[in-house]
Amino acid sequence: MPSNNPTIVLTGDRPTGKLHLGHYVGSIQNRLKLQEQHDNCFYMIADIQALTDNAANPEKVRENTTEVVLDNLATGLDPEKTTFFIQSQIPEIAELTVLFLNLVTLARLRRNPTVKDEMKQKGFGENVPAGFLTYPVSQAADILFCNSNLIPVGEDQLPVIEQANEIVHKFNSLYGETFREIKPSLTDTPRLVGIDGQSKAGKSLGNAIYLSDTPQEIEKKVMKMYTDPDHINLNDPGKVAGNVVFTYLDAFAPDKKEVQELKNHYQKGGLGDVKIKRYLIEVLEDFIAPIREKRESLSQDPSYIKEILIKGTLKARESAIETMKKVRHAIKIDHF
Amino acid sequence: MPSNNPTIVLTGDRPTGKLHLGHYVGSIQNRLKLQEQHDNCFYMIADIQALTDNAANPEKVRENTTEVVLDNLATGLDPEKTTFFIQSQIPEIAELTVLFLNLVTLARLRRNPTVKDEMKQKGFGENVPAGFLTYPVSQAADILFCNSNLIPVGEDQLPVIEQANEIVHKFNSLYGETFREIKPSLTDTPRLVGIDGQSKAGKSLGNAIYLSDTPQEIEKKVMKMYTDPDHINLNDPGKVAGNVVFTYLDAFAPDKKEVQELKNHYQKGGLGDVKIKRYLIEVLEDFIAPIREKRESLSQDPSYIKEILIKGTLKARESAIETMKKVRHAIKIDHF
Repeated sequence: MPSNNPTIVLTGDRPTGKLHLGHYVGSIQNRLKLQEQHDNCFYMIADIQALTDNAANPEKVRENTTEVVLDNLATGLDPEKTTFFIQSQIPEIAELTVLFLNLVTLARLRRNPTVKDEMKQKGFGENVPAGFLTYPVSQAADILFCNSNLIPVGEDQLPVIEQANEIVHKFNSLYGETFREIKPSLTDTPRLVGIDGQSKAGKSLGNAIYLSDTPQEIEKKVMKMYTDPDHINLNDPGKVAGNVVFTYLDAFAPDKKEVQELKNHYQKGGLGDVKIKRYLIEVLEDFIAPIREKRESLSQDPSYIKEILIKGTLKARESAIETMKKVRHAIKIDHF
Repeated sequence: MPSNNPTIVLTGDRPTGKLHLGHYVGSIQNRLKLQEQHDNCFYMIADIQALTDNAANPEKVRENTTEVVLDNLATGLDPEKTTFFIQSQIPEIAELTVLFLNLVTLARLRRNPTVKDEMKQKGFGENVPAGFLTYPVSQAADILFCNSNLIPVGEDQLPVIEQANEIVHKFNSLYGETFREIKPSLTDTPRLVGIDGQSKAGKSLGNAIYLSDTPQEIEKKVMKMYTDPDHINLNDPGKVAGNVVFTYLDAFAPDKKEVQELKNHYQKGGLGDVKIKRYLIEVLEDFIAPIREKRESLSQDPSYIKEILIKGTLKARESAIETMKKVRHAIKIDHF
């Protein structure tokens, strides 16, 4: 890749709650890998996007801005390698959003499967806030303001990339080559189920283990985990597929061989749920303890966090200003 | 009115064409009056709004930015009394737009009678650009970024003010008192008909007399004007109602008594169309000549125009920055 056209990665979180193991497996893990592979990585705290369906809860968004930064720093996202910034502090994103809104029709927004699903989930119907309906346009602006072209996403978020690329093509064809094609970096890890085994781990469902959970919380949650409901007597053979304890062991136990042995034993019969749960508690505590400790120590130093955010936001704004200069020229609104 | 809560007026034009007599009667006249009555008047060149349905024609919008400024300056809008600024140069308007989009539902936007009518006129249907559908939200941002609270509008634009006030109330109730109630200043002049007498004067209909028209153009257009189709013989009594020549005389002839005498004569019979048209040509030439001359001389001095726009835009941005400071605090995104 020539240096004048480097890959630029953008990832981010909505600051609506602390992050949990599902986020780790689904996003953070990938993010940590990408910061080692690419020189230009941005991490966005998507507070403006969080407000699209939390307009009445600005406190929640504000508080969780710090929480998601702590979670990411504690897991190893490195401010020397990844530029941390807050979406609301980049006015150019709003400028691009407003311009991009002219390039997308209402019909197209309503067809977006991601938005459609989420609207259904949230029961919005025609009373969907306009900001929510148009969030894929705002996401295109998030991606393009810093000229990023590699976006780690889950399969379900592919329509958002598709829509952003439509905006890229429309913009370039109307105003001349300005933006690059965006490529998704698909996360191969399947979504982590919640401890209930019913759905993906999520804050609203109360079925997630957080990166900041105490040993007591971890223990309590693992002990409640869904296993194999037919595994009643110790000597009965147990099922591994759909057994949340094994799903989590697969994701977090460093000793894959030992997990395989436990699986064999469990399937044969003679291995109790409490035993595998105790093992998982140890595994998770080993995984979370250093994160929790680093998180705790970082949270003692708010000025350091602020410094990271200010430095990163300034760097992101440099990109933003450069992009808007090109855009203003292309769209002929470069008056002064 | 206490000085810490002064009336702030906002008016503006979409830069999509030169202005004509219809604009004069419908907007500029009122604008000139308001700049004498209030210390704080803003005049916005709504280029971003013009792009909502001219996304493919940025050149047109750019060129007409200068044209509408010339038209307004030539008719007497005084940059010492009214702050001229270009919408696209105030990024805070885009920021407010994005925040306000969360406070309005899709259903509410679709119910807006002004948008509904215009969508029908333009044949958009579901393929309406999202930026067009949401332009009342962007207009609320135009009004509120500079804390303006008195907006001259025609009757047909009242729903836009209503929608903006809903945003004011929603914002204030969610985030605390931030914006003031907006009052419309209704133009009492009815819309000026086109020279065909069929509809309001408009560029796309080719039935308007421009503030920059030459004497030849004025003559040609007046000679084509719709009068009374039943007034065939000189001595026939003629109709004044619906007779475009008299409509324009009512609007522009300074000698109201003479117009009344002409009307009486025309209704009685014995006054020919060519005679009243010749009279109107003189009246319009007297009205337009000084505007045309001032326009011509101003257009020789692009650096003066630029200076007005830069100075005005800087002043508008001061308001914008102050407003965004309050908004950021209210919405809890005042991080640094």
